Amino acid sequence: MQRLGRPLLNQASRGFATQSPRYYAASKEVKFTAENYPNAKRDSRFAQLTLDDVNHFKSILSSPSSVLYGQDDTSELQGFNTDWVRKYRGQSQLVLKPKTVEQVSEIMKHCSERNLAVVPQGGNTGLVGGSVPVFDEIVISLSAMNKIRSFDEVSGALVCDAGVILESADSYLRERNHIFPLDLGAKGSCHVGGNVATNAGGLRLLRYGSLHGTVLGIEAVLPDGTILHDLQTLRKNNTGFDLKQVFIGSEGTIGIITGISILCPRRSNAVHTAYFGLQSFDNVKKAFIKAKKDLGEILSAFELMDGLTQDTYHTATGKPYPLAERYPFHILIETSGSNAEHDMAKLEAFLEQVMGEEIVADGTLAQDKTQADELWKWREGLPEACAHWGGTYKYDVSIPLDEFYTLVEDTKKRLEDAGVVGGTTDESKPVVGVVGWGHMGDSNLHLNVPVRRYDKGVEGLLEPWVYEWIQKRKGSISAEHGLGFAKRDYVHYSRDPTSLELMRRVKKTFDPQGIMNP
Amino acid sequence: MQRLGRPLLNQASRGFATQSPRYYAASKEVKFTAENYPNAKRDSRFAQLTLDDVNHFKSILSSPSSVLYGQDDTSELQGFNTDWVRKYRGQSQLVLKPKTVEQVSEIMKHCSERNLAVVPQGGNTGLVGGSVPVFDEIVISLSAMNKIRSFDEVSGALVCDAGVILESADSYLRERNHIFPLDLGAKGSCHVGGNVATNAGGLRLLRYGSLHGTVLGIEAVLPDGTILHDLQTLRKNNTGFDLKQVFIGSEGTIGIITGISILCPRRSNAVHTAYFGLQSFDNVKKAFIKAKKDLGEILSAFELMDGLTQDTYHTATGKPYPLAERYPFHILIETSGSNAEHDMAKLEAFLEQVMGEEIVADGTLAQDKTQADELWKWREGLPEACAHWGGTYKYDVSIPLDEFYTLVEDTKKRLEDAGVVGGTTDESKPVVGVVGWGHMGDSNLHLNVPVRRYDKGVEGLLEPWVYEWIQKRKGSISAEHGLGFAKRDYVHYSRDPTSLELMRRVKKTFDPQGIMNP
Repeated sequence: MQRLGRPLLNQASRGFATQSPRYYAASKEVKFTAENYPNAKRDSRFAQLTLDDVNHFKSILSSPSSVLYGQDDTSELQGFNTDWVRKYRGQSQLVLKPKTVEQVSEIMKHCSERNLAVVPQGGNTGLVGGSVPVFDEIVISLSAMNKIRSFDEVSGALVCDAGVILESADSYLRERNHIFPLDLGAKGSCHVGGNVATNAGGLRLLRYGSLHGTVLGIEAVLPDGTILHDLQTLRKNNTGFDLKQVFIGSEGTIGIITGISILCPRRSNAVHTAYFGLQSFDNVKKAFIKAKKDLGEILSAFELMDGLTQDTYHTATGKPYPLAERYPFHILIETSGSNAEHDMAKLEAFLEQVMGEEIVADGTLAQDKTQADELWKWREGLPEACAHWGGTYKYDVSIPLDEFYTLVEDTKKRLEDAGVVGGTTDESKPVVGVVGWGHMGDSNLHLNVPVRRYDKGVEGLLEPWVYEWIQKRKGSISAEHGLGFAKRDYVHYSRDPTSLELMRRVKKTFDPQGIMNP
Repeated sequence: MQRLGRPLLNQASRGFATQSPRYYAASKEVKFTAENYPNAKRDSRFAQLTLDDVNHFKSILSSPSSVLYGQDDTSELQGFNTDWVRKYRGQSQLVLKPKTVEQVSEIMKHCSERNLAVVPQGGNTGLVGGSVPVFDEIVISLSAMNKIRSFDEVSGALVCDAGVILESADSYLRERNHIFPLDLGAKGSCHVGGNVATNAGGLRLLRYGSLHGTVLGIEAVLPDGTILHDLQTLRKNNTGFDLKQVFIGSEGTIGIITGISILCPRRSNAVHTAYFGLQSFDNVKKAFIKAKKDLGEILSAFELMDGLTQDTYHTATGKPYPLAERYPFHILIETSGSNAEHDMAKLEAFLEQVMGEEIVADGTLAQDKTQADELWKWREGLPEACAHWGGTYKYDVSIPLDEFYTLVEDTKKRLEDAGVVGGTTDESKPVVGVVGWGHMGDSNLHLNVPVRRYDKGVEGLLEPWVYEWIQKRKGSISAEHGLGFAKRDYVHYSRDPTSLELMRRVKKTFDPQGIMNP
């Protein structure tokens, strides 16, 4: 076998520009969700907000900047009413920004007494319309609860407010030789409390597991204002039902998470990032199996991006491609270990195999943190790049690896056959293209359909067709993004009637009035 | 720094005998729980078992060997009525051994209609009286549901019946280059379903995390006979509440787990096991911090055993000590990695430091699997060794590392001051000694008080004193063993009233009649 060293790989330093992004050209007004989805009806049992309510909330929160209220949908309120993908827009007139768990408790006590519906909101980076109001629900923003409460360097247990931004938590931990066990593209805006409430998956799940395993405890306010104090910092506590597990992924429907404690792994001394081009999905699978075997315990990411995603990113940002040629598939591999020399030896053995056997066609290995960050942008920048033309239909699904990429191909064919795909040039067609990327290591595909405008005809071609496709493969219609408003009517494609009935009962147990994120 | 290589360590091969164990001398009759704890009352709403019921169950199960029924407590029934530590004994007259989930469903449908109380039972290796009846509850044994259903070598997802023995599952996986993500001393008898129902922690938690992170799905029968089909094999599914999480650690109180799917890690190519003697607990802590740093991602176990535990094992088994000298503390370290050369280099760097800085006093490194297994017995054999004199008061607790071992010292002092400790020689005293071992990596201490006989006076000295001690340190009174019968009245020491009220509501949601493991 021929030994292929680093000199045979392109260097990531080649030609990376640092220009500012050109996304978000579109700024046209987002339609009200209630108008877009006339079948969704406001529950008439909920009370209407009065000036007395607003004054009561002002007396609880004391600081004027903690209460945003407007009879009209002012621009400041609009940010809290509109979701990140500009697909959903609520009509809330009131945003509350409590600073303490006691304030959240007082707010909920009043809402419960008055039967006022609420929506808890973190960084509002969700992709399924779960963090914005549908009608006039009161938005409870956790943004003012943003303090680190404690960190134990021996055990790795971090305790912090729910409103701490993920990237801030990670930076705080890095200074103390640890990292947050979760990482995702929206880290600069999303809140750790929102991450827990939605059971966010992200880029480190392959290595550090899900939040169900790493979250040690939560502090939460129940719909009636009762505070659940469960901020444990110990790794094991088998005393009765593990209630925090119900809150992880509950999407704000049973209470408001105000604080979390979480087990944080030590920061790895050595991190290596490599980016490859491959000729077929079959080769991607082969590379994945080899990576699991050869890189073993140091493999921390295995991300798939198809060729069109990279073209999309290139078009949206103007950045030069990392590799000289174009390929139908790309993978981004990251290793994290305690010994750079050992890790590089493992990575080289892996490269030798996958290049020697022509599983990968070309690749580049980042030489430093800056180059690694640039390579990661070709994966992490994809949601924004797809939004470049106006909007994106997004499907975040789990599919067994054998048919992992087939969904993208089948969707492309379906839309092309219907004549709605115009590429980047034909502006008369609503759909720009069909692209796929995802966390290969977790069987988690992000199917994205970038569009010039949201279009009922395109939506009708995609839904429920995509969900039926998934159901036939026993996949999940929501791998890591949650149900939100977007998929709440489709949950039966991934859950049986018994599960759904139990969910209804659990919801009623925690929120008998149904005022939480209705 | 002087380089200390393997030649300076004792070799584990020295003097390990393979004699058969001498435990379990005691075989005196176990008292009925109902007599021992007269405050526990049978719920009069439950029906009494009739011959019609028994005949109905016989018609469901068809095979005569699937129904054990006796008006008298026959010896075969006694095995299902008595727990492993010989502390609890129920009076059930009926044991059912269904072979399929449909049979379990039919059984529960009848029990629900007739209001008959049941106790699901796995391998009956629990230590807190959770798997045996207290009164006349029907025992539903999962032992006849013991099939592997499927295994996917690419994803690592194993699907199997609840009654598969842990060691069988692990052996099956090892042949396929994987391992079960859980390991514990009782692996030869315990069931994987019981492991999930009790959220067992064990020896691999440090590396592979808790079952809340690794279990992918469950199949369970609800108290009314409804079957919950949720045997997913994909890693991510954020469609509504993660109901399986409520079953993990529910101890048979909301339904019967009949099948599980679980994510299994690849088997490590290289496993190294080392055993050390240390002069102080302070040195144990130092060694732990160094191990986390130097061994990083390959550290798979860090177990603490105090000096008296090793003496106890030596006395109970007659085996020669692994080290020439005696030490007040011992640790057992295991590494698991993909590259033996790299792992050994990391281990040697670690040894160089801890021996050079005199953090550890002496140590031995297993040269092969047989030697490693022998070293592990000095940790895994402790529960049996402690039971050697008749019984053991067992406390499985989480405590912050700073005061981790103080509980053992304080307990020893308390019992010695009360004059009840007789050591191995003074047979007039009920208590043999006070020993401690545990999963240092998880802050999880096993405080054990081996006794010649269970004694209300000793129990009164220990409880609730131990629980109060834990509560003051914000620890958990049940780290990994669960509540069972033993601790159900003490749960308030580790949970606040809000949590307890929510638990009551959750229990009622799933089991409105209260017939599951009452």
